[in-house]
Amino acid sequence: MANLRPMVTLTSDFGIADHYVAAMKAAILRHCPEAMLIDVTHQIPPQNVLAGSIVLERAVDAFDAGTVHLAVVDPTVGTERRLLIARIRSQWIVCPDNGLITWTFHRWGGEQEASLNELIWRPAEVSATFHGRDVMAPAAGKLAGGADVTELARPISDPILLAAKPASQLEDAEIIYIDHYGNAMTNVTRQLTQSRPNLCITVANRKIGSIRRTYADVACGDPLALIGSSDFLEIAVRNGSAAILLGLKVGEKVQIQ
Amino acid sequence: MANLRPMVTLTSDFGIADHYVAAMKAAILRHCPEAMLIDVTHQIPPQNVLAGSIVLERAVDAFDAGTVHLAVVDPTVGTERRLLIARIRSQWIVCPDNGLITWTFHRWGGEQEASLNELIWRPAEVSATFHGRDVMAPAAGKLAGGADVTELARPISDPILLAAKPASQLEDAEIIYIDHYGNAMTNVTRQLTQSRPNLCITVANRKIGSIRRTYADVACGDPLALIGSSDFLEIAVRNGSAAILLGLKVGEKVQIQ
Amino acid sequence: MANLRPMVTLTSDFGIADHYVAAMKAAILRHCPEAMLIDVTHQIPPQNVLAGSIVLERAVDAFDAGTVHLAVVDPTVGTERRLLIARIRSQWIVCPDNGLITWTFHRWGGEQEASLNELIWRPAEVSATFHGRDVMAPAAGKLAGGADVTELARPISDPILLAAKPASQLEDAEIIYIDHYGNAMTNVTRQLTQSRPNLCITVANRKIGSIRRTYADVACGDPLALIGSSDFLEIAVRNGSAAILLGLKVGEKVQIQ
Repeated sequence: MANLRPMVTLTSDFGIADHYVAAMKAAILRHCPEAMLIDVTHQIPPQNVLAGSIVLERAVDAFDAGTVHLAVVDPTVGTERRLLIARIRSQWIVCPDNGLITWTFHRWGGEQEASLNELIWRPAEVSATFHGRDVMAPAAGKLAGGADVTELARPISDPILLAAKPASQLEDAEIIYIDHYGNAMTNVTRQLTQSRPNLCITVANRKIGSIRRTYADVACGDPLALIGSSDFLEIAVRNGSAAILLGLKVGEKVQIQ
Repeated sequence: MANLRPMVTLTSDFGIADHYVAAMKAAILRHCPEAMLIDVTHQIPPQNVLAGSIVLERAVDAFDAGTVHLAVVDPTVGTERRLLIARIRSQWIVCPDNGLITWTFHRWGGEQEASLNELIWRPAEVSATFHGRDVMAPAAGKLAGGADVTELARPISDPILLAAKPASQLEDAEIIYIDHYGNAMTNVTRQLTQSRPNLCITVANRKIGSIRRTYADVACGDPLALIGSSDFLEIAVRNGSAAILLGLKVGEKVQIQ
Repeated sequence: MANLRPMVTLTSDFGIADHYVAAMKAAILRHCPEAMLIDVTHQIPPQNVLAGSIVLERAVDAFDAGTVHLAVVDPTVGTERRLLIARIRSQWIVCPDNGLITWTFHRWGGEQEASLNELIWRPAEVSATFHGRDVMAPAAGKLAGGADVTELARPISDPILLAAKPASQLEDAEIIYIDHYGNAMTNVTRQLTQSRPNLCITVANRKIGSIRRTYADVACGDPLALIGSSDFLEIAVRNGSAAILLGLKVGEKVQIQ
């Protein structure tokens, strides 16, 4: 079904206490007044590019062709770091070239039509500290309004990527993201778990056992492993926080036998 | 005044740190691109169906005929629990059948045209852990887009209800919800307070006195009782948190003499 | 570029855990169904009129002519305090007359066409505790829908103003706002800093040095001073919180030599 209005999602580490997000929205709407704006999150931990990268990929997965995603976690704002416009899954992503594209690139970058571009357009006035408002939001608005990417950017092939990537073998399993509930997402895809029958999962010296279908398959307060809604292996505690109750952190290794 | 666009509100315990809310919005918009989406809250404490039930009723009270309310606090996702489509105050509510409808049902369910239905429609693919995105959001989008409820659901008459309900006598007064300011809402309606003249209210061994009109009727830092904007009796502290300063919790009894 | 839809921004201390913000939005949309609603923040610390005043000014700066800003930090709700409709930068601001207009008034109130008005319109039913929902949101909706301000309000010239204002000399420098990152904004404009060459800044007994261009001009974890995106002098720590690491608070004096 076609969208009546261009959609623009926003992901950042700006928090929700200040005017920063609204300032980006004003800049988008100045270039595309009919845009529908959808917040993904602004609670990426400050300067945490890996967490931003994983959430951005989840937004790209959730939306359809034509969506524009604006993602700003930008600790080196005002330096010579490049800005990106990526075309992936027939969607646009505008973000700094600091690794934010990593998880989307690994999951969807192999598509035939995927492309990466450096955003070279700049407005007449640019602050040294808020390129989300001054450069990236206007560029996202222009794309949402139908601008041709060649007016804004030029192709590149060497994006900056973080070390994190989907595990290629079960021995590389580790926790890469912890969500609001304290569920711990690993870098292991559903497909990879299917490579070995009768898995037994251990994390933080706690034997979790095999992969369950849903949270209610164990008793309240018990830990479990399951394939989360992102299609990656997750460690959870029913009606509780795996992060707190098992002491899990990003980077923690997961044993899968 | 007629709405130009169908309104869909969202209430959940998803938090605002992840992509989960945006994923539900994408699913709604896929079925109703012209919908206006309005967040009620996503800060319901995880798995707290009672709190979700009270906030959902407040949303039903605040909006007008035709609004669709999507409410997801769903700790037993993926089990055999039913999903609901309720028609109340000429509005639609889509939520799990786990008690979330309780407060709305008690306050508005007695209306002649109120009805309850089990959502039986399912898409081709459904995850085991995120029926908000996979089933309930698309159903809310379909209703917002004008779908006939009989295509999605069948009538039922036995919703699951929590024990909480508006007090039928002053002796049953207790705290049922604590808001952002630390104001403590009770289960006592304005009407019930009018059943006895010269009330004197005591809570947590602290004599609060009679019902005041507004916060500024006492000195800063002093506790007071008043009829809140929900039309229920509330315990507050002027320019402070009653929850913290009086140590109030949900379930605490309130003496009204 | 003209806006297709009237924009209404919202700033409050309501938090995001309850239905309060959605109730204001329902009231706006009842009077202006085509409005585009943009949250600035609802995380103003409860009853903190100064913080609300600064964030409101930032919203007025970020948006364009025709925007309506609804700002509600209203600890004396239900008393005889006035409500305001201000016309500043060709935008409308609706808020209580309790000092919330202060920062906008000081920065933009000197414009020739700026005006202040008392909102005297009231609906048939008004609660004693939620004038954001009952009075100010409907008034904002009416303005967004094109109502004539003279139908709602009458001119005044004596708004309540807080003591805070942009510093007129470097000796008056102090911290007036701390943001999500822990960056500490002062009351010193860029122009004022240009009045003295080779500034050296000291705060909380820590010598910060001269004004840098952007965060990455110092090593990670080091403090710096820079002109923030608001065009005011800020104290920051690269990839860290100046508020936490330097122990900064609103009201702290800043030495500029």
